[in-house]
Formats: sequence, structure tokens, C-alpha cells
Amino acid sequence: MTRTRIGIVGYGNLGRGVELACRQNADMELAALFTRRDPQNVQPATADVPVFAMEDLAAHVGDIDVLVLCGGSARDLPEQTPACAALCNVVDSFDTHANIPDHFARVDAAAKEGGTVALVSAGWDPGMFSLARLYATCILPEGNDYTFWGRGVSQGHSDAIRRIDGVADARQYTVPVPSALEAVRAGENPQLTTRQKHTRECFVVAEDGADKAAIERAIVEMPNYFADYDTTVTFVSQEELDRDHAGIPHGGSVIRSGATGAQGENRHVVEFSLKLDSNPEFTGSVLVACARAVHRMSREGQTGCRTLFDVPPAYLSAASAEDLRAHLL
Amino acid sequence: MTRTRIGIVGYGNLGRGVELACRQNADMELAALFTRRDPQNVQPATADVPVFAMEDLAAHVGDIDVLVLCGGSARDLPEQTPACAALCNVVDSFDTHANIPDHFARVDAAAKEGGTVALVSAGWDPGMFSLARLYATCILPEGNDYTFWGRGVSQGHSDAIRRIDGVADARQYTVPVPSALEAVRAGENPQLTTRQKHTRECFVVAEDGADKAAIERAIVEMPNYFADYDTTVTFVSQEELDRDHAGIPHGGSVIRSGATGAQGENRHVVEFSLKLDSNPEFTGSVLVACARAVHRMSREGQTGCRTLFDVPPAYLSAASAEDLRAHLL
Repeated sequence: MTRTRIGIVGYGNLGRGVELACRQNADMELAALFTRRDPQNVQPATADVPVFAMEDLAAHVGDIDVLVLCGGSARDLPEQTPACAALCNVVDSFDTHANIPDHFARVDAAAKEGGTVALVSAGWDPGMFSLARLYATCILPEGNDYTFWGRGVSQGHSDAIRRIDGVADARQYTVPVPSALEAVRAGENPQLTTRQKHTRECFVVAEDGADKAAIERAIVEMPNYFADYDTTVTFVSQEELDRDHAGIPHGGSVIRSGATGAQGENRHVVEFSLKLDSNPEFTGSVLVACARAVHRMSREGQTGCRTLFDVPPAYLSAASAEDLRAHLL
Repeated sequence: MTRTRIGIVGYGNLGRGVELACRQNADMELAALFTRRDPQNVQPATADVPVFAMEDLAAHVGDIDVLVLCGGSARDLPEQTPACAALCNVVDSFDTHANIPDHFARVDAAAKEGGTVALVSAGWDPGMFSLARLYATCILPEGNDYTFWGRGVSQGHSDAIRRIDGVADARQYTVPVPSALEAVRAGENPQLTTRQKHTRECFVVAEDGADKAAIERAIVEMPNYFADYDTTVTFVSQEELDRDHAGIPHGGSVIRSGATGAQGENRHVVEFSLKLDSNPEFTGSVLVACARAVHRMSREGQTGCRTLFDVPPAYLSAASAEDLRAHLL
């Protein structure tokens, strides 16, 4: 068995998800954590894993096969992924869809220069949902794609609510509209507006004496985040929020509805769906499978940037090609 | 755009599905049909496509990039796929799961000898369902897999009923048990027997004067096919069968239910499902996407046998890697 020595960069929710995923895969060895905090103050859940400062990364890459980058797409990864790819094989979950081509190009240049393999934009969307879109589109070229997210927690929308005056804490759920989902599943190919596809549910803790009507108005009228959706705001106590909304669930469905036949008379519906109790743990599990593929591509002498679209599915598995054909095909 | 010249071997339901799929893909050109029947008696739905006898295949492979083999797994493909792979790139839908390793080995040897690329066992199961099982298993190594088939027509079971004395015609549907499907979707990880997963519905046309009670008994007690299932038999007229059961729908769901977390406390359910009006047209569409990938691998100088597990997903698409990253990732 080929072991893959993993380095985690950034030890937040996603980094902890990667750490836990390493434990479920016998060929994965968590070799080190890298942090921008003081390493003394970071206590990994796994015993005997060294914690190093980010600025010491170069001194330790010789002990790492693949770095799994667990920073955010807004500020961390645009700089971190190219910088790390110059030194070591990397995997990231860069998820700002509009900026993927630019991110890919910069990481590709760094990885080719460094002689490494990078895999970017892995996770579930982009990631598993992208694969579902690609496979279904290749099979059914005449059809329509639909992506529904939720029911799940949107961290970005929760943060936006917390920035409103008088808000102490908040949690926002993205929820698909059941009738829209059913129409798509029935192959009706509806044209759906933003408002018709998803609703937004907000659970908000107001500060003492805050103007709740003003908070509610600030939320439902917020451009980009809420104005285009039917949004409900429910005020709860901090205790209720902590008790009932502590998890980070997410999920959703990618559906392609297409037609075949001499006159398009036969309809086909392809659906890929996820129900996840923990968004960061599932994403971390995807990143670890991708790290295995990156290590293998690197051992083959490949260099440059890849996405899941470029990876033969068998490369994600620790099992042999023979075993996969005998047991999973 | 690279055009792929397709040759169809065998012009039954699946061959016609491949023919129709070629029309939906601008880079696919249906170049010839090959048949074991008298070519004079085969009339393609597509104008100006030449029809040749199987024994003349070798004389025409120079005009074909990929042969799509549309014969049956029981008798045709075990001989046909290796024989054709010795001459030309091929794709088949060999679906006898237990014999895939042997089939793969024989086709691999023939393709390496012939300097061709073969892709075997493509379609939806094996095929898209296999991919769903593989991806989900790589991401969630601690979990259980479930495959449900239907509601859909099983040709093999329909044939078995038609062989019973006194049966004029029949159509058999495989139907998942709703409560089992729901328990799996809810992440309950049930242990399910064959009987608990699927039921079988049979629509039977009896010959005049036939003993219907004897027919029903012969069906429900038939070993391997029906004895392990709850089976219902409904007698209908030939007119009713032709009117209400003319289609060849199928589908089903692959579900993996797994856990992550320090104590496996977070549950995740991954589901891939298909609802197909026409089993052969959908399968034909998968085979055509695979033919594109085979042609590309062959142009790269690869030789030997592959399955969908070995194919980078982007190879199935006519779009460029840049377009795929910009629009589908």
C-alpha cells in the first residue's frame, strides 16, 4: 500500500474535517498541521501531530506528499494555493465559481514551475455536483440542468446577518422550494427564477433593546443576499440558537432532464443528491480522496493544475483496478 | 472539432439507441452499420448510412474510428468484443457483472495485440451506477451501499415468463419496495433481504384455454427469477399489453449512507438516481459519450481495455477543458 503523507494548512472546521477523514483511510497519514496562529496555541485532535507556523512551510515540505489547503476562497486561497503549489503537491476547495478559470491558470503556472500537481475546486459544489453536471450533460446533450442547494446552512449569509446593527448572532438556512424540485424531478423542464427555486430562513439573536422590526427589514431587503428571495426571519434566544442550530448541515440536488428519440419523445431524469450532517466533514472527505489521486498523478511524473474533471475516478480509490472492476463495476 | 466516425454492430433496440444518440452530438458521424442479417433487409433510420455484413467488417474498419457493439452479453459480446477489438477501437455494454474480470482480460489482450482502445461494461449498470458507487465509496469509506432497480422492465424476466407453456406474451417490471428505499434514504442503514428490496409485477397474456392458475404458479415459484420475491401476476389481453406496456422504461437509485466525525456522529447520504423512459436509448447515449473518450485515448496512443473507472470525465465531453471549467465546474 502506498501511504500518502498529508499536511493540513489551516485548522478551522474544514481542517478538522480533513483530519478526521485521514483517520478513516488506512493509506493516509496526517504528517503535520500548518497554521498562521501561534503553533503553541493549536492543539490537534490527533496525538503526536506536529504543528508548524505557516512561514516554516518550506522547511517541512520534504515530509509531506500532499498539502490540503483549508483556507477560505475570498482571501486565503487566491494567494495560498499558487504559493504552496510552487513547493508541494496541493488540493484546495476554491469555490468562487466565477473566478475558477483565473485561479486555475495561476495555480497551473506555479505547479508547472514547481514540478508539482495541484487539484483545485474540490468538494461538493464545486466538486461532486460538478461531476454530476458533466456526466449528465455528456449523456443527455439535449436537456436542462438544475442545481438546488439545501436544506443547509450558508455561512456567508449567516455572516451577513451578523454584521447588521443590533444582531448578536444568526444562522441562515438555504431551502429549496418543494414544488420547484418536484416539477424538475417530474421532467417538466420549468423555467425558474431565483425566487422560485430557493427560500431563505433566518434565525436571529437580537441584542437587548434592539429594534427587531428594523433588523428584519435590513435582512429581507439586503441586496444580493436576500432581496431576490422569500425570506423568513425568526428571533430566538442565544440558548435556542446554540441548542437547535449548532450543526453545519448542507446538501442539495443536481438534476438533468433530457430527451432522446427520433422526435425527443423519451424523457430521462438524472439526479445526484446529497444530505450532509456536516458540510466541512464531507468536504474534508472529498479533499482526502483527491489528495490520494494527486499523489498518484505526481508519482507518475505529471505536473500542473487539475480539477476532478481530469481525474480518472479509480485514482480516488485505494483499491486496485482489479478489485474495483470485480466489486464496484 | 474532431469528428468520430461510429460503426454500429448489431441493429436492435440498443443499436437504434446509438443511432439516435449520434444525431444529438455534432462531433459524431454514423459511418456504417454491421449486421449478421442479410444487409439488404436492414433499413437504417438514418439516410445514406451503408449496411454491411459482419463478415465484411475487416474490409471497412479503415473508415471507422470506434465500433459500438450492440449485441447481448450472454452470447454475442464474449466473442464479438475481443474479435472486434483486434481490428478497431470498440465500446460495449457487457453487463454480466460476475464475468466482467474475465471479459476485461480477454478484451485487454486483444486490444493490446491490435493496438486499439476498448471500453467495456458501459451503460447505466454497469456504467453510471458503478461510477456513483465508486465516487461515494472513496469519499465515505465507512458506510453501506444500496442499489435499487426500477420501476422498470426486465427483459430477461419477461423472456422467462414467455417460455412458460400457455403464455402468449408477457412484460415484467422490477419495482423497489418504497419502505426499504425510504429507510435507506433516511440513513438508517437497514439490512435488507432480496425480498425486502424489490417486488416483481408481471403482466401476462395467456393463450386461449390455458390454465391461468398453473401459469401463475409456474411464475411465482420459478427459482432464481421469482421465488425469492413477492411477485404479482396480472392477466391482460394482447391489446392491453400492447397499449399499456409498450415502452422500455427503467431506472433506479444507488445510495451510499456513511458516517464521519470523531465517533461517527455525522451521517451523510449520497444518492444517484435515474428515471428513464427508454432504457436502450439512454444506454446508447452513454455508449456514444464513451466512444468519444475512446477515440481521444486512441489518438493519444493508448492501447488496451478500459472501463469508465479509468476515463477522466472531461474525455466524455466534446467541450474544451476551459469551457468545462468555466461553465460546469
